[in-house]
Amino acid sequence: MSLISDLHWRYATKKMNGTKVPQEKVDSILDAIQLAASSFGLQPYTILVIEDQATKEKLVAASYGQPQIAASSHLLVFCAWKEVTQESIDTFIADIAAKRGVPLESLAEYKAYISGSVSHLSKEQQAIWNAKQAYIALGTGLAAAAEAKVDATPMEGFLPAQYDEILGLSAQGLTATVIMPLGYRDESDWLSNLPKVRRDKDLLFKFI
Amino acid sequence: MSLISDLHWRYATKKMNGTKVPQEKVDSILDAIQLAASSFGLQPYTILVIEDQATKEKLVAASYGQPQIAASSHLLVFCAWKEVTQESIDTFIADIAAKRGVPLESLAEYKAYISGSVSHLSKEQQAIWNAKQAYIALGTGLAAAAEAKVDATPMEGFLPAQYDEILGLSAQGLTATVIMPLGYRDESDWLSNLPKVRRDKDLLFKFI
Repeated sequence: MSLISDLHWRYATKKMNGTKVPQEKVDSILDAIQLAASSFGLQPYTILVIEDQATKEKLVAASYGQPQIAASSHLLVFCAWKEVTQESIDTFIADIAAKRGVPLESLAEYKAYISGSVSHLSKEQQAIWNAKQAYIALGTGLAAAAEAKVDATPMEGFLPAQYDEILGLSAQGLTATVIMPLGYRDESDWLSNLPKVRRDKDLLFKFI
Repeated sequence: MSLISDLHWRYATKKMNGTKVPQEKVDSILDAIQLAASSFGLQPYTILVIEDQATKEKLVAASYGQPQIAASSHLLVFCAWKEVTQESIDTFIADIAAKRGVPLESLAEYKAYISGSVSHLSKEQQAIWNAKQAYIALGTGLAAAAEAKVDATPMEGFLPAQYDEILGLSAQGLTATVIMPLGYRDESDWLSNLPKVRRDKDLLFKFI
């Protein structure tokens, strides 16, 4: 199982060496993220891919000074939609119709089903739901980065409100929910050679 | 990129044919889930692996009658911890000490850091945070299933309260958060040959 060995290889890299990740590797990671599963297939998030060094530097303080932000090659900011608008559902349904070559009318029931499901959620619940979907994409992106032998650091250790302000996210209906710097581990990273710690299978799983 | 082709191959299978997934393939999927990233590495969830047919049947009504529950080979129920107890943090820290062969005292600062972070969250926020971590594991499990050419259906379409009751989860401090039946697609599943619909890259990503 190559995924298993990829997952053994990866770790949350805290010290990166500043080397650029080649564009084709970045593209392959983004391709995988694009293919990630989400509820209804709605993908209720937008992902910033920040290569601009000045922008990364601006985010360091909002990331508790953690060095992998500025030393990363690309910083991915997974932004959940703050709510699910009817417009976004309409756009999604139109996209299905176009990509599958079916009449819009044939999707009316599915559209009503999605709208109905979402309408049961408060705006706050919608934002949480959207964020959860982004975490599936994060998990997919981590696997893709590991396959490409690119280091990646899944991070919640940042201040979303400051990210939202610095990156102008609120005005776009977005909020930063989880981030993932991409780059290459610095060999002096003390974490890089530590044994991986995971819950034992007899605790993590219950078999029925 | 084999992950990309695996992700193209997979889809949310609605009709499974009842064929059993060989144990070694189930094990490889569970291995990947065990290796999934989580905040602090805490893995604040427990995953039920339900092979017992009677138990699966009991969950059909609580899953809006969807046929892939009973027709699956194994049903994975990702259960988030309802809260993060100090005991669970202590257990985690002891596990790190044992697996890395370091004295418990050397991890006191890290333990205090985790406890401090969690103490800022209400119990409800802790449950949401735990659920988000489970979604990373779900994303990892979906990639692993696709690599093993096992079909898997990420599902939120079920009634968590009923699952919690049927499976006795509440008493264990758990709540069902997302589920994933494993099995094999029935070739008559009308969804199996539809073009995959994903948001276009110029909408999904913003490059800075």
